[in-house]
Amino acid sequence: MNTPKGFLFSAVEAAIKKPGRKDLALIFSEREAVISGMFTNNNVKAAPVKLDMKRIESGRGQAIIVNSGNANACTGKQGMKDAVEMAEMTAKTLGVKTDRVYVCSTGVIGTPMPMERIRSKITELADDLGRRTIGDVAAAIMTTDTFPKAISKIIKIDGKAITISGVCKGAGMICPNMATMLCFIVTDVNIDKSALDKALKNAVQKSFNRITIDGDMSTNDTVLIMANGMAGNKVIRLKDNSGFRKFSEALSDITYELSRMIVRDGEGATKLVEIEVKNAKNERDAEKGAFAIANSLLVKTAIYGNDANWGRIMAALGYSGIAIKEEKTDIYLNGLKIVSKGTGMGKDKEANEKLKNKEIKIVVDLHLGKGTAKVLTCDLTEDYVKINAEYRT
Amino acid sequence: MNTPKGFLFSAVEAAIKKPGRKDLALIFSEREAVISGMFTNNNVKAAPVKLDMKRIESGRGQAIIVNSGNANACTGKQGMKDAVEMAEMTAKTLGVKTDRVYVCSTGVIGTPMPMERIRSKITELADDLGRRTIGDVAAAIMTTDTFPKAISKIIKIDGKAITISGVCKGAGMICPNMATMLCFIVTDVNIDKSALDKALKNAVQKSFNRITIDGDMSTNDTVLIMANGMAGNKVIRLKDNSGFRKFSEALSDITYELSRMIVRDGEGATKLVEIEVKNAKNERDAEKGAFAIANSLLVKTAIYGNDANWGRIMAALGYSGIAIKEEKTDIYLNGLKIVSKGTGMGKDKEANEKLKNKEIKIVVDLHLGKGTAKVLTCDLTEDYVKINAEYRT
Repeated sequence: MNTPKGFLFSAVEAAIKKPGRKDLALIFSEREAVISGMFTNNNVKAAPVKLDMKRIESGRGQAIIVNSGNANACTGKQGMKDAVEMAEMTAKTLGVKTDRVYVCSTGVIGTPMPMERIRSKITELADDLGRRTIGDVAAAIMTTDTFPKAISKIIKIDGKAITISGVCKGAGMICPNMATMLCFIVTDVNIDKSALDKALKNAVQKSFNRITIDGDMSTNDTVLIMANGMAGNKVIRLKDNSGFRKFSEALSDITYELSRMIVRDGEGATKLVEIEVKNAKNERDAEKGAFAIANSLLVKTAIYGNDANWGRIMAALGYSGIAIKEEKTDIYLNGLKIVSKGTGMGKDKEANEKLKNKEIKIVVDLHLGKGTAKVLTCDLTEDYVKINAEYRT
Repeated sequence: MNTPKGFLFSAVEAAIKKPGRKDLALIFSEREAVISGMFTNNNVKAAPVKLDMKRIESGRGQAIIVNSGNANACTGKQGMKDAVEMAEMTAKTLGVKTDRVYVCSTGVIGTPMPMERIRSKITELADDLGRRTIGDVAAAIMTTDTFPKAISKIIKIDGKAITISGVCKGAGMICPNMATMLCFIVTDVNIDKSALDKALKNAVQKSFNRITIDGDMSTNDTVLIMANGMAGNKVIRLKDNSGFRKFSEALSDITYELSRMIVRDGEGATKLVEIEVKNAKNERDAEKGAFAIANSLLVKTAIYGNDANWGRIMAALGYSGIAIKEEKTDIYLNGLKIVSKGTGMGKDKEANEKLKNKEIKIVVDLHLGKGTAKVLTCDLTEDYVKINAEYRT
């Protein structure tokens, strides 16, 4: 996979939860980079999230150290000390400023970080920079993910080739506003802070913030993007319409593709489901309605069972609290109209067949206004229950 | 089971979804009764709900006809015609006023009512009045319920014995504000309309409105209570403190016990779970926090798996949006303190043992104010998924 100029990657095994895989990773930029981030809205935030939120005010970053196996959340004062120490040791070993190092953790909540095992691995982690790929980072940050998630894209701006690469992890607890989702994006574009902030916000709003697996939102969600300017293009600013738009679109593509991978890999999921609510009173209603359907356990289990039980979709729309007129509502399933003006078309058999696809698209047309929103989700299976009942064992 | 004076019950097989069980029931009061009701907040309401909501404005009732197997929801104009016809035929056969007959339906959404099979059974239904018990009604209204739910209580007011009997059905789609939950209460108390309304509202608020199984809310939820005055006590009014309080408490006991039965019988559930959030900023926060925990799939699966993963409880509190100070929060599991001031007590092994009980009590002490609320729920199992993936097959 192509990666942007000046970025190096590393991953080692620190046996944080248990031995047998790489679980500690490092992303390093040879030059100090502009950095933007978005973080969980959960009122209970993990120590590294609190640390990064403070640090990112400077707008500058050079390294991200990330571990899986332990979330360093609900770990009290010791948790914050541990996060700070991870950053300090990394900075010292790399020879960069401490406050340019960001820390991310994912895994079990409420267990102290096994710092002795992490400490002893930082030198090896730094030594391996350049010997490992961004794919190794994607693998090291997995928890219950079944495959590593990475993507790259090259665009041209100002005659220069610009590379954007992203990795993420997801699987469980995925909900609006990015629940246990970590995503790291690196790019060699030359861009100023406010343009990078805006591009990231746009991208996340319609990707990571519009996916849901089980309605839970984590304490650790973080998206970070570092742009080190080494592509050599003229600096992109907000007012620079064409350059900004090009970069912004490419970044949105990256986050959208990554969010699809997360949903496809939802715990126990067998199907990727896109819910589109259109012609709602407004966009907020459309989003709320789409989320109500996407989060309904009854809808998700029906999809899993190849049962086009559209009554459950109507019920979810009904309790979502949005404006709805039953007698105006149409529902389509993979292009087949199954509900017209609030009542069934008698197409259940045909619709059940459509549900055997691995990709399901449900479109609800409310015929009330111009608001439209799409939400990605997955089905709910026995395996979801199994995975989450046995997570810590 | 003791039942109040003047009430007769009946149940027959109309093969509404499929043959093999009684699925059409009738509750009849020899005298016209005072009636109160509470209905689903879902914006998509089943035809019989719309009918009853209009009819109940009169405050008078004499019969309730109820079927399982078909919800008569999302059935358009024909659905309303069918509900009206069910009431009309019942009224004619019983020789009572049509607008004193209430109709309730539960089952699959979006399928037209098999009216020819219902029509042909109304006479038999009326003929069997008095030959069947309230327990037969409880059995006939079951859908995925695994046991009939009925309870009776006798109290003394004004020197007279007063009986209150209730039946309900629940199982799936149980959520705040009574989701696919039907409950019928009959009593021979002599009470006026406003006192009955108030007593029912109090009772439902702390019972059916504080239970949740999967967060879905149905199109058909209905609670009806008929009081026919045949116990002969002096009429209870709101200002009659002692009589009202006695009746109100007994009614609250009835609905609380019925709501416990519903949760215990949650689809696929193996455990009954009570979540209490106390010392929240206010009662609203306490309720919201308790529901966030109760509705968290991650919490529910952890309880199923005997895994005292309290981090998931903290995370749910965090995203619930209520006021919370991590460093002040304590959590107890069946009396064992597992979290003190936001961090673990290292009691996970002991706590996992506690989770092997069939009744789980989680207490969260926020130490922020005086708001307290209890919510009942159950664990989430593979069987929930199985039941709901195969519901219509």
